[in-house]
Amino acid sequence: MTDYLAITGGVGGAKLALGLSHILGPGQVAFAANTGDDFEHLGFAISPDIDTLTYTLADLANKTEGWGRTDETWDFMEALQQLGGETWFKLGDRDLALHALRTELLKRGQTLTEVTRTISERFGVAHSILPMSDDAVRTTVLTADGPLAFQHYFVRDRCRPAVRGFEFRGAAEARLNPLITRLLPDLKGIIICPSNPFVSIDPLLSIGDTRNVLRTLGVPIVAISPIVAGTAIKGPTAKMMRELDIPLSAAKVSEHYGDLIDGFVLDQADRDLQGTLDVPTIVSQTVMVTLQDRIDLAGTALEFIDSLTA
Amino acid sequence: MTDYLAITGGVGGAKLALGLSHILGPGQVAFAANTGDDFEHLGFAISPDIDTLTYTLADLANKTEGWGRTDETWDFMEALQQLGGETWFKLGDRDLALHALRTELLKRGQTLTEVTRTISERFGVAHSILPMSDDAVRTTVLTADGPLAFQHYFVRDRCRPAVRGFEFRGAAEARLNPLITRLLPDLKGIIICPSNPFVSIDPLLSIGDTRNVLRTLGVPIVAISPIVAGTAIKGPTAKMMRELDIPLSAAKVSEHYGDLIDGFVLDQADRDLQGTLDVPTIVSQTVMVTLQDRIDLAGTALEFIDSLTA
Repeated sequence: MTDYLAITGGVGGAKLALGLSHILGPGQVAFAANTGDDFEHLGFAISPDIDTLTYTLADLANKTEGWGRTDETWDFMEALQQLGGETWFKLGDRDLALHALRTELLKRGQTLTEVTRTISERFGVAHSILPMSDDAVRTTVLTADGPLAFQHYFVRDRCRPAVRGFEFRGAAEARLNPLITRLLPDLKGIIICPSNPFVSIDPLLSIGDTRNVLRTLGVPIVAISPIVAGTAIKGPTAKMMRELDIPLSAAKVSEHYGDLIDGFVLDQADRDLQGTLDVPTIVSQTVMVTLQDRIDLAGTALEFIDSLTA
Repeated sequence: MTDYLAITGGVGGAKLALGLSHILGPGQVAFAANTGDDFEHLGFAISPDIDTLTYTLADLANKTEGWGRTDETWDFMEALQQLGGETWFKLGDRDLALHALRTELLKRGQTLTEVTRTISERFGVAHSILPMSDDAVRTTVLTADGPLAFQHYFVRDRCRPAVRGFEFRGAAEARLNPLITRLLPDLKGIIICPSNPFVSIDPLLSIGDTRNVLRTLGVPIVAISPIVAGTAIKGPTAKMMRELDIPLSAAKVSEHYGDLIDGFVLDQADRDLQGTLDVPTIVSQTVMVTLQDRIDLAGTALEFIDSLTA
């Protein structure tokens, strides 16, 4: 019986997922991964957030780069550059094996869920990584330069175009991963990881009536703020909020989730906000540098859920 | 104006092609490459004979292995093996860049001819490498174990299954590369490289009425024997002939081409056969070890064509 579901994007969320995996066994927690970033590139089916989660849980994440895997080599990329191919999305030689295998298995008719399980098991990951959907949901960033597929915005254009909004193409018709749907009735709580609310968490919430289903589930949903002291720990969240005219504050992230959440975890740097939000709030160290930081924050989130259940 | 067309398969043919490229300028000779061996693997469009030709003419061929390219690394393959992926077809990290680029360009709607030109130009190859067709023609080896796609027979099963015959699926409906068709009227001669007649040369001859078109062109067609002193220099030709109950003799290769050819080049080890064949025959050193051997044999073939034209 799975007690907890953690909804997560890439790097920041994966850190908390790692912490949770140290406290809870494979049967106790499952990770719902954003697939809005997924794209086809050079013929490969690439799932950046699933892979970050997989590499992180397998202890193969490249800690220096913040993406990709350890022990990586770049001969493919170098040869591709010499051939004048597209090199804006960096694919390491070893990382490429994962993409090639996923592409091949998908082509043979396996679902992304099945492929993800196969790959994560082969890397020795015992916990369940569940793609938010087996249907294609594609995050499109509406920018001053026009709509951009997420990786084109994020990697190729390095988040330079000013953001006007987001579309999760396919989300309305997509089906939430049935393995996620199946475990919802037995959950004790849901954790929204400190990922980008707009492009890492909203895609899942936009699938069909998922937001409503989760909201009315009757178990505590707690979110951890990805905004600390008015800035984002990682990635383009802060820049996006500025461009969307949303004040750079953890409070605005809490407001963004609105009545979906039952609790909000603020960083200790934002303790002044405690008591000013519409949801129960606790203060903790949310910046995760060491493994112990990850485990501590995971424990805090679980205790928070516990306290909200009582 | 292209004076000569050389029809070639992989390694053996590419050696002679390299010799020809040292004698004739890019405008004087074009290479028609077998694509019957092409296949899709791990999502990549792979064209083994085109690539061998490209790497050979670019001086990037891996001379130790006899396939693939120089300065190769194997991190992708190693990671794929760890993931339990299919590793019977060896794809080096650098070689992979070529396959990824080709796959991508084909997906964008370019023809194999256009893609091949782009890639060979980027490698600095000035001569034209022309895929025999832009349509799919797939060599299928009929074996005692059932029909096998060529690379499954050749690489995966290491030519173990006994050969009963061949099918070139799609050949009847395929169209000869229009760039080849266009240069036919101006040719002074055609060279059939010392490649495997059954699986490297026959695929092209099987495209529509190509055999007949070439036969009635009115210019000398000379073939160089891939069989020397009753054995094949390279690859499975000898084993195939045994299994097809064809005596292992250069004479049988000449017979196989029949009235298509106007001249046949025997190796000096087979000088006894001279005068016993139905076509004009010359004797030369056909085993190409050094670059000079390649250039010498190319020169001999061109002189032979010249002598047959007079």
